[in-house]
Amino acid sequence: MMGQMMEQGLLISTLLKHAENCHADTEIVSRIVEPAEGEARFHRTNWGEVAVRCRKLANALKRLGVGDSDRVGTLAWNGYRHLELYYAISGSGAVIHTINPRLFPEQIAWIINHAEDRVLCFDINLAPLVEKLVPLCPTVKTWVALTDAANKPKQAIANLVCYEDLLAAENDRFEWPELDERQAACLCYTSGTTGNPKGALYSHRSTLLHTYASSLPDVMNTSARDVVLPIVPMFHVNAWGIPYSAALVGYKLVMPGAALDGASLCEMFVNEGVTFSAGVPTVWLGMLSYVREHGVKLPAFKRAIVGGSACPPSLQQAFKKELGVSLQPGWGMTEMSPLGAVNALKKKHLELSDEPRGTLELKAGRLVFGVEAKIVDGDGKELPRDGVAFGDLLVRGPWVIKDYYRSDKSPLVDGWFPTGDVATLDADGFIGITDRSKDVIKSGGEWISSIDLENIAMSHPAIAEAAVIGIAHPKWDERPLLVAVRRPGAEVSGKELIAHYEGRIAKWWTPDDVAFVDELPHTATGKVQKLKLREQFKEHQLP
Amino acid sequence: MMGQMMEQGLLISTLLKHAENCHADTEIVSRIVEPAEGEARFHRTNWGEVAVRCRKLANALKRLGVGDSDRVGTLAWNGYRHLELYYAISGSGAVIHTINPRLFPEQIAWIINHAEDRVLCFDINLAPLVEKLVPLCPTVKTWVALTDAANKPKQAIANLVCYEDLLAAENDRFEWPELDERQAACLCYTSGTTGNPKGALYSHRSTLLHTYASSLPDVMNTSARDVVLPIVPMFHVNAWGIPYSAALVGYKLVMPGAALDGASLCEMFVNEGVTFSAGVPTVWLGMLSYVREHGVKLPAFKRAIVGGSACPPSLQQAFKKELGVSLQPGWGMTEMSPLGAVNALKKKHLELSDEPRGTLELKAGRLVFGVEAKIVDGDGKELPRDGVAFGDLLVRGPWVIKDYYRSDKSPLVDGWFPTGDVATLDADGFIGITDRSKDVIKSGGEWISSIDLENIAMSHPAIAEAAVIGIAHPKWDERPLLVAVRRPGAEVSGKELIAHYEGRIAKWWTPDDVAFVDELPHTATGKVQKLKLREQFKEHQLP
Repeated sequence: MMGQMMEQGLLISTLLKHAENCHADTEIVSRIVEPAEGEARFHRTNWGEVAVRCRKLANALKRLGVGDSDRVGTLAWNGYRHLELYYAISGSGAVIHTINPRLFPEQIAWIINHAEDRVLCFDINLAPLVEKLVPLCPTVKTWVALTDAANKPKQAIANLVCYEDLLAAENDRFEWPELDERQAACLCYTSGTTGNPKGALYSHRSTLLHTYASSLPDVMNTSARDVVLPIVPMFHVNAWGIPYSAALVGYKLVMPGAALDGASLCEMFVNEGVTFSAGVPTVWLGMLSYVREHGVKLPAFKRAIVGGSACPPSLQQAFKKELGVSLQPGWGMTEMSPLGAVNALKKKHLELSDEPRGTLELKAGRLVFGVEAKIVDGDGKELPRDGVAFGDLLVRGPWVIKDYYRSDKSPLVDGWFPTGDVATLDADGFIGITDRSKDVIKSGGEWISSIDLENIAMSHPAIAEAAVIGIAHPKWDERPLLVAVRRPGAEVSGKELIAHYEGRIAKWWTPDDVAFVDELPHTATGKVQKLKLREQFKEHQLP
Repeated sequence: MMGQMMEQGLLISTLLKHAENCHADTEIVSRIVEPAEGEARFHRTNWGEVAVRCRKLANALKRLGVGDSDRVGTLAWNGYRHLELYYAISGSGAVIHTINPRLFPEQIAWIINHAEDRVLCFDINLAPLVEKLVPLCPTVKTWVALTDAANKPKQAIANLVCYEDLLAAENDRFEWPELDERQAACLCYTSGTTGNPKGALYSHRSTLLHTYASSLPDVMNTSARDVVLPIVPMFHVNAWGIPYSAALVGYKLVMPGAALDGASLCEMFVNEGVTFSAGVPTVWLGMLSYVREHGVKLPAFKRAIVGGSACPPSLQQAFKKELGVSLQPGWGMTEMSPLGAVNALKKKHLELSDEPRGTLELKAGRLVFGVEAKIVDGDGKELPRDGVAFGDLLVRGPWVIKDYYRSDKSPLVDGWFPTGDVATLDADGFIGITDRSKDVIKSGGEWISSIDLENIAMSHPAIAEAAVIGIAHPKWDERPLLVAVRRPGAEVSGKELIAHYEGRIAKWWTPDDVAFVDELPHTATGKVQKLKLREQFKEHQLP
């Protein structure tokens, strides 16, 4: 017997309608990308205006021939026009495909061709990049510069129109269609360190459920009394869901554009009274050094989520002590929309002494309801949730992908998505990331965490950056090699570094050898490319 | 094109699994209903134990012949066994039907027969009531006393078994079925003031969406650092969703049993460190007078939702000033699962001066995302959202009913549910309840709020309680009659009361006449029965 409840679908357009009905005057402030002479550097709008412009944009998309489920690409920073694209594209039944402009042009072209984007919208400081893309992307029928006619890019871009011209030609009457909630809404490609990028195709349903969950008190904890600045870009897994929760919650939204340096961020944090933010460790490091150098005060700022990679302990402590800001680690991935866990303590943890509490506060996060997780050993056998055993981390839930876009090979294992992380789970749902599955070093049938070894190396004062990889070994299968970059002017020998491990780790975990390099190879998003390192050191002879 | 996300259903069993995996040691404290000689007055368990007992209970239900979508009734207070029934019944695919034991036995029997409950579970202090019900309820095959063999009721109840005996006979292996998320999960009857009760049949989906929404920072705002005592009974619209959000959030849950007097509540608030609660104005009034009389301190207590009827301004102020507790009005109804709105201020409101802020804080609430609302005039034309215009309030959303259980007449108007409330809506989504549709007085084509007139009457020091009803009038259609109860020993004339309205309201709203009575008729849930009053005064001659 079915329940007798209304069959209202979980649609992205309902978020926009809610924002228009309940948050019409709530501000959305954006830093303008490349303001022209005399143009204001900051743009102010609100949900009432955005909702009207979204309806015009939906009409414009129809006029450009964008049909049901057609892909519309964006190469854009965090700003109000990008926000309008989020709602108008998905709301009208098409698919927004957000693209990372920091990838190589060939990668971007590959992604655009794989997605078969029909229209591509770009911020004007990316016009030089777009000029290169045009000949490589035959599926794109219209290139839309996110600006007005006065600022139209001068580059040679065929079929170029300006966003404001498109909107000006339309009226604001548009009925958002009553779509199937499982319909595709957004497409995000992973910037994998290996192979071609893979697309995660979110539905309206998955996006709405993720939006509810991400706003919870133990997740992002955002209310209509907050001012939120997403540093994480809207081309990076939908800025972790902030463009959607902004409409649900009705907090003031502050969009930093392309300027993510400490000075630019601090200017907006101070002027707009930002209370909450989200970003990767690198931007927090940049902001911290700017704050220290210029004695900036951020009294409104209280909390931020730090994700993308592990939060350095010193960063978390500095934010706490110097700024009074809780940096809460979060964990997720493109394939998870992205949120899986956020570090939020329970009542019993408030009574912990500093040390165990500090250790806990650095864990990747506590599971969000909606994401189930388990850890398994090499044979797929489930391991205990005791915070000690570690194994391959698998997840499932309504905002986890079941397939990649246009791929016929399911990534799932018995219905679970393998995250590629090696982790511990505890009885409270806290996840502790031990390593990436492909980076963990398999020595004598046991696993060694490359991350743990890297953290110890980086705790040595002479070391700027370190990576640990497994080198084939006839007896142990693999043994760890430490690849390290010395700080400028610092001196340290391999022997001294090996000695630094003593007492800090089980003896058999100690790296067998150290190789010094001038720099480590990085991906476009700043991660160390261990695949390249393994290639580079594949002939390395351990002592 | 569909998105490529996992098809995990929104099922109540996933809440229980989450609680077992992530909140196993989180406490659930219950006051025992009628503890036996020597038995502890309070029972302590946790989600780990509850999850195991739920699986045993699910096996026991199968053994009792409870099949898919069969109804299992409960006549029970807030306690851990009732919580287990919530999860085991719905989780296993049956329907939990919670019944208000304060209704008349004939009404209860009518409801049980209408629902065709197959099993009925009851708290032992209700055994005398159950004894009366047994001969009236032929569909019930088994009566389950929520106790152990030692406390088995002595009443003559055929087919009586004890809950703990049922559980003891089962093992704890049970796989929660992968149900259709639209399947029926819970059945709640409205205790309407007119006609027979009507059943709202919630689905797993509607319950899960309501659970996400109810936990949001601008709704109940509960985290794993909270201690929550639901005063609102689990037989009253699922205690406003608290038994479900407890599992999602993992807060400590404190169950007051049948003892809702000030002394008993304060004992649990103090001993367990309750931070958040929810209940109707009456219980808060009782608690306030106990606190004042005994000088009780409740330092952990910070916030509570007050719903069911309007929050008296003096009550809200006393809680703020004397206890430091925010009493936030909430609004909803059985047909809405029940939450529609909770009074949570926005950033801009924090700068208001005391008076407008105080007025705002008394409004019924701000719309929760997931519930759409509109107000319409007598012709169904939508009225402006300006906080001034008032009309019939209609709602829709995924946790609003579309039909009543076993009724072939849809209550919907163009797909919207008419709440029966007359209200204002403002541009922030705040709802101001003006009146009940059936109580509003239609005078000369305009509407007069009976509630406004009652509040003015009750602000007179000599008046204990007041109700205003419309009396048929040859020229104006209806005119207001004030029916008032004087405070013991107080003196006031009708003329004086009428004069009390001067300057407080538009002249034409002033009641035409006053009738004094010794008491007003009330429903089982404490609401004034205006239907009875209208019957009583239908021959009343206005001057």
